[in-house]
Amino acid sequence: MQTSSNSVKTIIDKRKKEFFDYLRLDSVSTQNRSIEPTVKYVTELISSTGGDFQVLDDLGGNPVVYGFFKAGPKGNADKTVLFYNHYDVQPEDPLDEWETDPFDPTVIDGKLFCRGVTDNKANFILRLYAIEYLMQSEEGLPCNVKFLVEGEEENGSPNLDAYLKKYADLFKSDGCIWEFGGKNEKEQFVIETGVKGMAYFDVFVESADVDIHSSLGAVVDNAAWRLTHALASLRDKHNHVLVDGFYDDIEQPSASAQQAVKEKKVSQDKIAAIYGLKHPFITEQLDWTAEEALAFYPTMTICGLLSGYTDEGTKTVLPRKASAKLDCRLVPGQDPLKIEQLLRQHLDKNGFADVKLDLLKGSKAFRSDIDHPFVQTVKESAEEVYGTSSEVVLSPTNPGTGPMFSFGEHLGIPVASSGCGHAEGKAHAPNESIRLTDFEQGTHHMVEFLKKFKDA
Amino acid sequence: MQTSSNSVKTIIDKRKKEFFDYLRLDSVSTQNRSIEPTVKYVTELISSTGGDFQVLDDLGGNPVVYGFFKAGPKGNADKTVLFYNHYDVQPEDPLDEWETDPFDPTVIDGKLFCRGVTDNKANFILRLYAIEYLMQSEEGLPCNVKFLVEGEEENGSPNLDAYLKKYADLFKSDGCIWEFGGKNEKEQFVIETGVKGMAYFDVFVESADVDIHSSLGAVVDNAAWRLTHALASLRDKHNHVLVDGFYDDIEQPSASAQQAVKEKKVSQDKIAAIYGLKHPFITEQLDWTAEEALAFYPTMTICGLLSGYTDEGTKTVLPRKASAKLDCRLVPGQDPLKIEQLLRQHLDKNGFADVKLDLLKGSKAFRSDIDHPFVQTVKESAEEVYGTSSEVVLSPTNPGTGPMFSFGEHLGIPVASSGCGHAEGKAHAPNESIRLTDFEQGTHHMVEFLKKFKDA
Repeated sequence: MQTSSNSVKTIIDKRKKEFFDYLRLDSVSTQNRSIEPTVKYVTELISSTGGDFQVLDDLGGNPVVYGFFKAGPKGNADKTVLFYNHYDVQPEDPLDEWETDPFDPTVIDGKLFCRGVTDNKANFILRLYAIEYLMQSEEGLPCNVKFLVEGEEENGSPNLDAYLKKYADLFKSDGCIWEFGGKNEKEQFVIETGVKGMAYFDVFVESADVDIHSSLGAVVDNAAWRLTHALASLRDKHNHVLVDGFYDDIEQPSASAQQAVKEKKVSQDKIAAIYGLKHPFITEQLDWTAEEALAFYPTMTICGLLSGYTDEGTKTVLPRKASAKLDCRLVPGQDPLKIEQLLRQHLDKNGFADVKLDLLKGSKAFRSDIDHPFVQTVKESAEEVYGTSSEVVLSPTNPGTGPMFSFGEHLGIPVASSGCGHAEGKAHAPNESIRLTDFEQGTHHMVEFLKKFKDA
Repeated sequence: MQTSSNSVKTIIDKRKKEFFDYLRLDSVSTQNRSIEPTVKYVTELISSTGGDFQVLDDLGGNPVVYGFFKAGPKGNADKTVLFYNHYDVQPEDPLDEWETDPFDPTVIDGKLFCRGVTDNKANFILRLYAIEYLMQSEEGLPCNVKFLVEGEEENGSPNLDAYLKKYADLFKSDGCIWEFGGKNEKEQFVIETGVKGMAYFDVFVESADVDIHSSLGAVVDNAAWRLTHALASLRDKHNHVLVDGFYDDIEQPSASAQQAVKEKKVSQDKIAAIYGLKHPFITEQLDWTAEEALAFYPTMTICGLLSGYTDEGTKTVLPRKASAKLDCRLVPGQDPLKIEQLLRQHLDKNGFADVKLDLLKGSKAFRSDIDHPFVQTVKESAEEVYGTSSEVVLSPTNPGTGPMFSFGEHLGIPVASSGCGHAEGKAHAPNESIRLTDFEQGTHHMVEFLKKFKDA
C-alpha cells in the first residue's frame, strides 16, 4: 500500500503554522535561551497529534520530554520504535552572514531557512505528521511509538545518559530512529547507524594580570604565542594528532562496516563546491581515504581562537590571555576522559603546564550492527520512497556526534537515522535550511517504515 | 637659579580644566574618532599659552600642528628646540577592565587616570606650562621653541615622514625632545635617545565560503589550524624568529651605546610584580640579556587572534576564516618592507602561500649619538631635578616605536626624551595613568632644560 501523497500534503499544509511557531523559538541550549516555552510547545505538539507525554526533569539539565502513541487496534502492540529528537539548536552567530532573520522561518525557492530547521526541528515535526497520517488511515498506527525529545544535544547531552539509565523501562523499545538524517552531496539517502563521540575543550592561557605595551615583547612572554605553540604541538599541519596514545584505543570496525564504507563514495568536488573549500581534502596527506576518515578516524579541530586586539587597524599590545575551543571527534574505543588525560600529559611534557584544559563535553562513539533486522527495515522502507538500493546508502558511522552510546548502553537497541536533511543544509552555520520536497519525502519514509516495522 | 615651585603649581592649578578637557577628547586615530575637535583644541592650547600655530594638512592624514614660541628679549634666538608630541591615543578596549571611565580624567590617590594621559597628552601640557612659567619669569623664554603635534602616532605615523620632508625648514631646530619619557620600575628617570622601528601585519587565512559543521574536520581543512601552524612556524616558543634573513641587517650599536645599556639594569622582579607576569623573562632562553633584548634586538609579537566561535560554551564548527595581528619591533638596519618580503617568502616556502600578509604600518628604528651636547644637556638638567646621576639614566634605544627615524633623516638632529611617565602607567592598556608628582617634576625638568639649552 502506497502512502497517499495528498493526505500527507494536507497535514503539512494544515499544521504549517504550528511548525513555524516551533522554529521561531530560539532554543539555544548553550546560551540557555527559551528552554521553558520550547518544552511546553513540544508537549503541546505531542498532545495535539494525539499522544501522551511526561516531562522528566528530576535529574537536572534541560527537561527531557517523553512521548507515547499506542498502536491502533489493527496494529502490533508488541513492537515499539523510539524516536529520538532534540528541541535545542545551535547559536545563530555570525549574525551578519544570515540572509534571513535566523529565527523567522522563511521559504525561498522551495527551501525553508531557519536556525534549527534541519538540526533538527523539521525531523521531529515530520515524525508527528507520519503518526497523524497513519492514525487517520484505515489501518491505524501500526506499532507503538515512543519519543525522547531532549534539550541539550547541541551542548553535548550532558544529562541524557542519566535519564536513559533511570528511565530505561519507560523508553524500552526495539530500535531507535535517530534525530538526524537525509541526503548527501550526491543526493543519496544515507542511513546512519553510528556516530562519533566527542571531547570538547576550552583551552586557556594567561601570561600577565594586564595587557602590556608590546615593546616589552623583547622580554615578556605573551599568552597568544603560548596558545599558538601549544595548539601547534597537538596536531601537525597534515592533520596527524601528535598526542601520545591518542590513536591507541581505536576499535577495528566490523567487516560489513568496512565494506559499507568502501561502497560509500564521497565526492570531494561536490563537497568543495557546496562549501567553497579553498584547500583540497586533508586526507590527501594521510594514509586513509576520505570515506574511512569520516567513518573510522578521530579528528582534532580548532573551533575558535581569541586573544588581544581583533578590531580594524593596529594595536600594539601583549595580550594577557588567550583562549581556544578544541573539538575532538572520537571513534569507538576512545574515551573522552582518557583523551583529556592524554592531552594534559602532552601539554605538561612539552612545556605547556601553564596551558589550561577544561573538558566542556565528552561523549563516546557508537556503531550499531548494520545487519540487524531493525536497520534493514529502515533501509527497505527507504528504498520504497527514495528509489532503488543504489540511492539508499547504509553508513556505519556518521562523522557527527550524538549521545547514541547511551541508547546502546542502557536500552540495548540498534539505531538508524532518517531525516529530511540535504548536503547544503548548513547545520551549525548561517542560512541553515531544508528543502520542502525532502520534508515531504521524509514524512513518507516514516509512514512506510512504521508500516513495515510492525511485521519486522 | 632654581625654578619656583609655587609658580609652577599655580600654573598647574590654574590650567587644570584646560588639561582635563584635552583628556576628555577621545582622539583614537585608529578608529578616526574626534580628530577635528582635538586639532582645534591643540591650537587653542598653543594660542592661550602665547604661541603661534599653523595647521598642516596638505599632505593627507590627520593634520599636523606646528607651534612656535619666540625666545624672549634676554634669550638666545639662535637656539631652537623642537618638542614632538601627538594628540592621538590608543583605543580604550577592553572596556570592562577599566576602573574609571576611560575618557573621564579621574584623580585617585595622587594618580590621574585617563586614556592617553601618559601617552602622551600630559607631556604636551607640561611643556606648555614650562613655557608659560618661563615667559612670566624675569629672564623670559631662553630660546625658541617649536612644536610638532601630530595625530597618527598610535597608527604608525604613516604621513609624518612626508610632512617632515616638505616642512624641514619650518621645523628646523637643534635638537628634539621626544613625545614620551619618564621613570622606570626602579624610579630612575630614563632619557631615551632612540626607538625601535615596526612592521605591523594583518595575517589572514580563509578555508571556505561558509563555516562548516566540525564533523567534516575529518576531511576539510580549517582556517584556525592553518593560521596556528603558519604563526608557529614564524617564531619558536623560545622567542627566536625562524624567518630566514630576519636578523641579517641588524647594525651593531656603538661602544658607548653598548656601555650605556650594560649599566642600565632591568629588574625582572619589579616588572613581574607590576604586570603580574606568569612566566619568567623569555630572555632566559636566549643568548642576550634582558637589557640587550630591550635595546638592541627585534621582537615578533602576536597582538591578537580571532577565529570561529569564541563565546561561552561549545559550538562545533570549522571556522572559515582566521586572522591575527602581528607586530615586529625592528632595530637600526632593519627595513619594514624587507621584513614583509622575508615573511612572505617564509610562508610561501613553508606551504602557507594561502596565508595573507598585509603590512599595516612600517617604520624604521633610530638611535641618536648619546655623546651629542644636546643629549648631554637633557641629562644634566634632569640631574638637577631628579637628583644625582645614579638616578638619571641614558638609554640608547627605547624598546617602543616612534617616527624618530624621520626626524634624523630630514632634520638631521639628535633626539632625547623627557616626560612624566611612570613604570605602572599602563600605556596602551586599561587604567592608564600618570602620577601628579611626576607631572610637576616633568614641568620643572623642561624649565631647567630650556634654561640650560640656551647656552649649550
